[in-house]
Amino acid sequence: MKPNAILLLSCPDQKGIVASVSNFIFHHSGNIVHAAQHTTERSKIFFMRIEWELEGFDIARGKILEAFEPLAKKFSMKCSLHFTDVQPRIALFVSKHIHCFHDIILRHKMGEFKCQIPLVIGNHLELKPVAEQFGLSYLHVPITPDDKVQQEERELAELKRHKIDCIVLARYMQVLTDRFVARWPNRIINIHHSFLPAFAGRSPYQQAYDRGVKIIGATSHYVTETLDDGPIIAQDVIKISHRDSVSDMEMKGKDLERMVLARAVRLHLENRILVHGSKTIVFE
Amino acid sequence: MKPNAILLLSCPDQKGIVASVSNFIFHHSGNIVHAAQHTTERSKIFFMRIEWELEGFDIARGKILEAFEPLAKKFSMKCSLHFTDVQPRIALFVSKHIHCFHDIILRHKMGEFKCQIPLVIGNHLELKPVAEQFGLSYLHVPITPDDKVQQEERELAELKRHKIDCIVLARYMQVLTDRFVARWPNRIINIHHSFLPAFAGRSPYQQAYDRGVKIIGATSHYVTETLDDGPIIAQDVIKISHRDSVSDMEMKGKDLERMVLARAVRLHLENRILVHGSKTIVFE
Amino acid sequence: MKPNAILLLSCPDQKGIVASVSNFIFHHSGNIVHAAQHTTERSKIFFMRIEWELEGFDIARGKILEAFEPLAKKFSMKCSLHFTDVQPRIALFVSKHIHCFHDIILRHKMGEFKCQIPLVIGNHLELKPVAEQFGLSYLHVPITPDDKVQQEERELAELKRHKIDCIVLARYMQVLTDRFVARWPNRIINIHHSFLPAFAGRSPYQQAYDRGVKIIGATSHYVTETLDDGPIIAQDVIKISHRDSVSDMEMKGKDLERMVLARAVRLHLENRILVHGSKTIVFE
Amino acid sequence: MKPNAILLLSCPDQKGIVASVSNFIFHHSGNIVHAAQHTTERSKIFFMRIEWELEGFDIARGKILEAFEPLAKKFSMKCSLHFTDVQPRIALFVSKHIHCFHDIILRHKMGEFKCQIPLVIGNHLELKPVAEQFGLSYLHVPITPDDKVQQEERELAELKRHKIDCIVLARYMQVLTDRFVARWPNRIINIHHSFLPAFAGRSPYQQAYDRGVKIIGATSHYVTETLDDGPIIAQDVIKISHRDSVSDMEMKGKDLERMVLARAVRLHLENRILVHGSKTIVFE
Repeated sequence: MKPNAILLLSCPDQKGIVASVSNFIFHHSGNIVHAAQHTTERSKIFFMRIEWELEGFDIARGKILEAFEPLAKKFSMKCSLHFTDVQPRIALFVSKHIHCFHDIILRHKMGEFKCQIPLVIGNHLELKPVAEQFGLSYLHVPITPDDKVQQEERELAELKRHKIDCIVLARYMQVLTDRFVARWPNRIINIHHSFLPAFAGRSPYQQAYDRGVKIIGATSHYVTETLDDGPIIAQDVIKISHRDSVSDMEMKGKDLERMVLARAVRLHLENRILVHGSKTIVFE
Repeated sequence: MKPNAILLLSCPDQKGIVASVSNFIFHHSGNIVHAAQHTTERSKIFFMRIEWELEGFDIARGKILEAFEPLAKKFSMKCSLHFTDVQPRIALFVSKHIHCFHDIILRHKMGEFKCQIPLVIGNHLELKPVAEQFGLSYLHVPITPDDKVQQEERELAELKRHKIDCIVLARYMQVLTDRFVARWPNRIINIHHSFLPAFAGRSPYQQAYDRGVKIIGATSHYVTETLDDGPIIAQDVIKISHRDSVSDMEMKGKDLERMVLARAVRLHLENRILVHGSKTIVFE
Repeated sequence: MKPNAILLLSCPDQKGIVASVSNFIFHHSGNIVHAAQHTTERSKIFFMRIEWELEGFDIARGKILEAFEPLAKKFSMKCSLHFTDVQPRIALFVSKHIHCFHDIILRHKMGEFKCQIPLVIGNHLELKPVAEQFGLSYLHVPITPDDKVQQEERELAELKRHKIDCIVLARYMQVLTDRFVARWPNRIINIHHSFLPAFAGRSPYQQAYDRGVKIIGATSHYVTETLDDGPIIAQDVIKISHRDSVSDMEMKGKDLERMVLARAVRLHLENRILVHGSKTIVFE
Repeated sequence: MKPNAILLLSCPDQKGIVASVSNFIFHHSGNIVHAAQHTTERSKIFFMRIEWELEGFDIARGKILEAFEPLAKKFSMKCSLHFTDVQPRIALFVSKHIHCFHDIILRHKMGEFKCQIPLVIGNHLELKPVAEQFGLSYLHVPITPDDKVQQEERELAELKRHKIDCIVLARYMQVLTDRFVARWPNRIINIHHSFLPAFAGRSPYQQAYDRGVKIIGATSHYVTETLDDGPIIAQDVIKISHRDSVSDMEMKGKDLERMVLARAVRLHLENRILVHGSKTIVFE
C-alpha cells in the first residue's frame, strides 16, 4: 500500500471551497482517491475529508500545510493533515473486564487497526498477564478517591513519555477528572454499555432490566467533562426479551460493546471523524 | 382455520403448575398446540400462555373458566381466556399523521390483523376522508384544554357503545387524562417515536438530532398514567448519520413507527402479552 | 426548496477530474452541496455524483451539458444531468399483491417520493379500485402466453404516450420479454422476495422454507434479460425461526419488500445510482 | 447454579404428550423451569425441550431414562437427556484463520461456553502458539490429497481418546470425507462465510463481490455429506456498499462469523437444537 495524505478541514460554507482544495491537490500532481463533504443545516459550517496519493505529489510531506496555508487563511479553515503510513500511538485504559481489551488486541494483531499500542494502563492487576501474553507493556495505576489527581499526573507523564496520540477506554471503570479530559480533547474514546442518552452512568444493564426495554445497546463516544455526554461516534443495539436476566444482557452486550468500540477506534484511526460541538461528522 | 382456545395465566411459582394445566386440557380431550412459560427471576412469579384446539374439547366455551376454577384457586392464578375466532374490537385514535393509521388499515385489509375496527376517533379532520375511503366510521372529537374532560367522556361513551376491547393510538397527539387511562388498563397501545426511555415527551426526533445520536428508534407500549413510561411491548431502531436532518429522521422513522406499532398490535391481538408491573412478558 | 442540478458521470480514472469538474461549477458561480466519488478497484473507472445550487449559476439549464461538453470529451466521460425540481414520471406495474403498490402510493402521497405516477398497468383487475381510489389511471393489460408480444407493444405505446421515465414492478408477476427490457435499460426496478442470488425464480418463500434458513430477505434490482440477475440496488433481511410457516414468511416478508423497494425507488428518483456492468454504485 | 435436567424429544403428534411428560416430572417432584414445543406443519411431528430442577427430583440421574422408558415407548419418542452441570467436550478444528478460534477460546475463558476444550486439531502450524498460549493441547494433522483417509483415522482416534462430544470447525479449510461425517451426525458445527444457500463453496466473499450484493452473511450449520448443505443453526448479515473490496468484506465478515458461530455453539451446548431432516428446531 502506497501512502496517501488525508486532509480534514472545516470552515464557514461558501462557494469555491471544493474547487480550490481539489485544484491545490491537482496542481501539485496529486490524485484524489476519496473526497466527502458535509454542510451543517443551520450554522452552514462546511466539513471536508479529502484523501490523495502522495506518489507524484510535488510537495514534501513536511511542507504541505505551509503550502496550503494561503488557502486555509482565505476560507478561515481549521485543518489537520494525516498520512496513511503513519501509525497513531494508542494507550489502552482497562480495569477488570477482558472482552473489549482482548478484542482490540486481536484486531490489532490481525491488521485491522493501523496503529501502535505501546502502553496499557490498568487500575487493577487482573489483565496484566493478558497484556504481557501479547507482549504489551502494562502499567498498574491503582486509583483511590484520595490519590486520583496524583495518579492521573503519573498517567499523563507516561502518556507523554510514550508519545501517545489517542486513549481508548476499554471498559475502564474510573471517571477521569475534568483536568485530565481537558488535556485530551476529542482524543479519548470510551465505550458505554447502553444506547445513550438512555441509561447513562452506573449499571446500565440493570437500569435496562428494571425499565423492561426490548433492546439493549452500546455507544462509543469521545470523552468530555460531562459523564457519558461526549460526541457520539458509533452506536448499535440488539434485541432482548423478558427471558434475559441482567447477566444475560451482560453476556450479549459484550458482543455489542466489542463491535461498537472497534468501529469507533477504526473510524478514528482512519481519520474519518470531525467533531462539531457536541456531535460528530463521520465520513465513511 | 379451526378455532383454538388460549389461556393466559400467572401465579406464584410452584411445582405442578404445568402438569396440572396440561392435564386439565388433556383430560377434556384438548390438543395443545402451543405452550410457553416464564418465571421471574427474583419475585418467582410464574407466567404461562397455553393454546389448544377446541375441536374435540369436551367443555363448552362458556363453561371452560368455570371448570378451570378449582385449579385457578389452588394455585392462586390470575387468568384470562380467549378464542382465536373471536375478533377483538379496536378503536383507532388519530391526529394528522397518516402513516401509522394507513398502515394499520392496510394490514387489516390484507388479513394480517384478526380484529374489527368499528371506530376511528380523531381530534382533527384531516384523516376523515381516509377513514371513509376505507368504509370506517370516523368520529371527530376536537380537544381543547378547557373541554378535555367532557370530550373524553364522549369518547368513553362511544367506546362503550361500540363494545371496544382495545385502543390503538396511531400517532394520536393528545395526552390522555389519568382518569381515562385508569379505565383502560393495559388496553391502550401507543407508539412513541424514540427508543424509550431516551427522548420521552415532545419532539423526540429534534431531541435525537440535538444529541447527535447515530440511531433513532420507535417504541410501542401500553399507556399508563405517566407519559411514555408504560410497559414496553416492542422496540426497534435504524441507523442514521450526520447527514440526516430532523425531517430526514421523520421520514425514516415513519417506517420504524409503522412496523413497531404493527408488531405490538399483532402481539396484543394474538394474546401473546402478559403485563408484570412495569414490564411485559411477550410469548412469541 | 430551491432547485439543484445533479451531474452523474463516469470515465477512466486520472488526475484532475475532481478539480476540473468542481472548477467548472465554481467558475460559473455554482455552490456545490454534495459530491461523492468512487473508483473501481481493478478496472479503475471513476464515478461521480455532484450536486450544486442552480441559484446564481450563470448557465441556463438547457445549455449546461453543452458548456460541459469540452470537459466531458477531454476525460471521455459518460454523463447525465438532472434537476431536483423536475419530477420523473413513473409507471407502476402490478398484479394482485397490494402491499408494495399501496405502499408506494402512500409514500408518494406523503411527499416521500418526488415523482409523478401518471400510469398504473396491471395484468389483473384486483387493484383497479385501489388505483382509482387514489385518482390514478389504471390500464388493464391481461397477458397470456399467446399474446404477450402484442400486449407488451400496447404497454410500450402507453409508456411513450405518458412520457414515462422509469417503470416500477410492484410485485408484477409476469416476466418481461428481452425485447421489452432492452428498450428500458436500467430504468425498470423490480422487487424480488429473497436475498438474491439465493432463491431466484418462483416461490422464494417456499424455497426458503424447504431449505430451513433462519433469515429471509428482499432484493430490489434493475431488470435485465436474465431473470432476477440485474444490478442490485438494495437488500435487507429479517430473522425467522422454525415456527414460521410459508404464509408467516409471506406476511413478514411484506414489510421487507415494501421497505426495500421504497428505498430503491427513492435512490433512483434522487439520482443516486450509477450502473457499472452487473453492479451498482449507490451514492447515499 | 444448581443442576437441571434437560429432555429433548420428538415423536408423532398426538393428544396428551405435554400432559404425560409434565406429569412424569411433577410426580417425581421435579420443578419445570423451561418448556417449549413445536409441531411441524405437514408431517405433524412433535418436538419438545423440557428442563427441570434436579433438586428434590426423586429419581437418580442414571435411572431417569429407564423410568421414562414406558412413556417414550407409548408415544414412539426419540429422546436424549442432558444435565446442565455436565460439560460437553469440544474439539476445535482450525487452519490458519485466527478470529473464530480466538473468539471461542475467549468466550470459553469468560464463562460464556459451558464446555471443556481438551483438543485442538489443525492442518497447519500457524495457530499452535495461540493454542499453547491458552494452555490448550494442539495436534498438528496436515492433510494432503493422498493421505486424507489415514489422517482422518488419526483424528478419529484422537477424538475417541479425548472423549469428544462435539466438533467445531473454526474456519477449518478442509472438506471432511463422507466417512468421517457419517461418524459424527449432527455433532460437527461449521461456519460458512455467506448467507447460505447463496455462495456455497469456495471464496464466498469473492462471489459476493462479483455479484454486487449489498449484504454479506455468515451461516453456522451441522455438517452433512453435501458441502455447505447441512441443517442451518444460525445466520446473520451485515450491510456493505460498492466501496467494500473483497478484503473489506473479509474484515467485516470476521465479526459476523465470530458471532454466528458462537451463537450456534452456545445453542448446541445448551441443548436447544433438535434436527428434523435438513432443518433445525431451535428452542431459544
